[in-house]
Amino acid sequence: MTQTNEYPATGYAATSPESGVAPFEFTRRGLRDNDVLIDISHCGICHSDLHTARNDWGRTNYPIVPGHEITGTVAAVGDAVSAHKIGDRVAIGCMVDSCKSCDHCEQGLEQYCQRGMVGTYGGTDLHDGTKTQGGYSNRIVCRDEFVIKVPDALSMEDAAPLLCAGITSYSPLRTWNVGPGSKVAVAGLGGLGHMGVKFAVAMGAEVTVLSRSESKREDALALGAADLLITTDKAAMRAKTGYFDLVLNTIPVKHDVAPYLRLLKLDGAQVLVGMIDMMPEMHTGLLLGGRKILTGSGIGGIAETQEMLDFCAEKGIAPDIEMIRMDEVNEAYERMEASDVKYRFVIDMSTL
Amino acid sequence: MTQTNEYPATGYAATSPESGVAPFEFTRRGLRDNDVLIDISHCGICHSDLHTARNDWGRTNYPIVPGHEITGTVAAVGDAVSAHKIGDRVAIGCMVDSCKSCDHCEQGLEQYCQRGMVGTYGGTDLHDGTKTQGGYSNRIVCRDEFVIKVPDALSMEDAAPLLCAGITSYSPLRTWNVGPGSKVAVAGLGGLGHMGVKFAVAMGAEVTVLSRSESKREDALALGAADLLITTDKAAMRAKTGYFDLVLNTIPVKHDVAPYLRLLKLDGAQVLVGMIDMMPEMHTGLLLGGRKILTGSGIGGIAETQEMLDFCAEKGIAPDIEMIRMDEVNEAYERMEASDVKYRFVIDMSTL
Repeated sequence: MTQTNEYPATGYAATSPESGVAPFEFTRRGLRDNDVLIDISHCGICHSDLHTARNDWGRTNYPIVPGHEITGTVAAVGDAVSAHKIGDRVAIGCMVDSCKSCDHCEQGLEQYCQRGMVGTYGGTDLHDGTKTQGGYSNRIVCRDEFVIKVPDALSMEDAAPLLCAGITSYSPLRTWNVGPGSKVAVAGLGGLGHMGVKFAVAMGAEVTVLSRSESKREDALALGAADLLITTDKAAMRAKTGYFDLVLNTIPVKHDVAPYLRLLKLDGAQVLVGMIDMMPEMHTGLLLGGRKILTGSGIGGIAETQEMLDFCAEKGIAPDIEMIRMDEVNEAYERMEASDVKYRFVIDMSTL
Repeated sequence: MTQTNEYPATGYAATSPESGVAPFEFTRRGLRDNDVLIDISHCGICHSDLHTARNDWGRTNYPIVPGHEITGTVAAVGDAVSAHKIGDRVAIGCMVDSCKSCDHCEQGLEQYCQRGMVGTYGGTDLHDGTKTQGGYSNRIVCRDEFVIKVPDALSMEDAAPLLCAGITSYSPLRTWNVGPGSKVAVAGLGGLGHMGVKFAVAMGAEVTVLSRSESKREDALALGAADLLITTDKAAMRAKTGYFDLVLNTIPVKHDVAPYLRLLKLDGAQVLVGMIDMMPEMHTGLLLGGRKILTGSGIGGIAETQEMLDFCAEKGIAPDIEMIRMDEVNEAYERMEASDVKYRFVIDMSTL
């Protein structure tokens, strides 16, 4: 495998748990035969970026350039690349490589690669062992099979958050066969949750937003939800006992999932996609009484991510975003923590 | 609805958390049109009997006659009963009534009756509000639709434990489509677990018993298991990461279910059937990483219980039992708590 010269790159990196992100110069690897060089136009901001920048999960290897909701234009391709060409509108999500040969990869579930997928940032390249760096930067190099096409009907800024927030909420709705007649509850109305509502509505489901606050009602209905259920209202919660086929739980902080299990029908499922943390203890009677299912889901495979982008283009679905400049990311982190964003920040990379 | 005179009954009841069970005289209701009077020949001893006798779940209404693994012979029938006749070999499990008109009952899932099933003991009769009393007694009256037929190929003593231990382990194997090629792990080798092994083997699965102790190996293999996996052996557990389609978790005490989630394949399920308690906290990454499912299951519906008895008759499956006299029940409770039984005590009611 021949390889071109490295590319100089610029971006924003965190250098310590307290540093926030700041300007950073680095290099992208030269193109291998199956690599694509992308000029990044936009990058969404995910809670994982913040967790990683601050080392909340205890495994950050500094310096780290966050960002895994990346859109841009193909600037160069390796000799063996046929699926993408210079000028194509493309995207990269949470992973840039996997073994592509294990059982899971062969099912198109690269995110569950049995040898481990390579994360878009903080991962380890399978060939040269270098650390991967994410999308808060002007360019990126990625294996062709992990580059997704952005349909013409989607703007580059709208497409960006779909690569993580979008696919993470879309995939479980497909896995659990949401469609016309389904009753779906979405817990948490942030980047993931607001997309969950839009997707489930577009799939034909009756959607209810679960929130602690009545203040979300107008927003929930505007997103297409049929109702808002206040989780602190015991009588209202009791009235919906056994009502839902699926609870899509996008809440990103540690919390008790028991109240949502009570809302499920017989054989209903609560899918956790936001909380990556210790789950508080709960009584098993909530699972035994009605065969309730508690499960989780992580992003989606490459083929399903492409399907999701195509679904958005076909149905006219886009995230609600707030565009920011690159130098506003640290402030955006603070606002995201305070849930002060509707519903996803997207960095305009031309401001880098 | 006409009703015959009440029947005097004798049995063993607990009268306080410390009393154990002791001789007790009471009455059974007179037959309603759709009732069946059964002369009890055998009754299995379930962990629930012990929990109830000791008020471990805080809702025992003394005096209570335990027992919900009941076999016997029809002694009389109400005027409208056509499905059963005097002399029939029959059985009663964990429930004696339900509304039979809600969505769940109409699906044959009376155990999840939306108005609440009536437990065989400690329940409240839907018509006269009296407390139900269980099978540690000489006779019982039960609605015809909750009386199950014992196939000729099954002895009355073998059939008894199938009514709770049997159906509780059989139902989730059916729900999760266990069959040839399935890899099933059974955690806990007691009344439920040993039946889980026999059923899963009979369904064509490759079965592994999970145990803390190497001492169970011979028993596990004798039951038809292909292997025993020592859960305290970290290397052995790691080697089976992602191996099983289903973990049937029959362990009846509070414990950490996380190690068993790691053994599951993508989309694999761990079904809790034994632990009715607070489940210790666990990391959600175990659910998100591979869409693992944690769920539960409670006994089975009446139709499925009949199917299970017929399956046992067809396949020549019977529980491993130890027959005891009625006056040995308190001792049996102590031995059951010490796991000193292979695998189910059955009371010979002729000793009452």
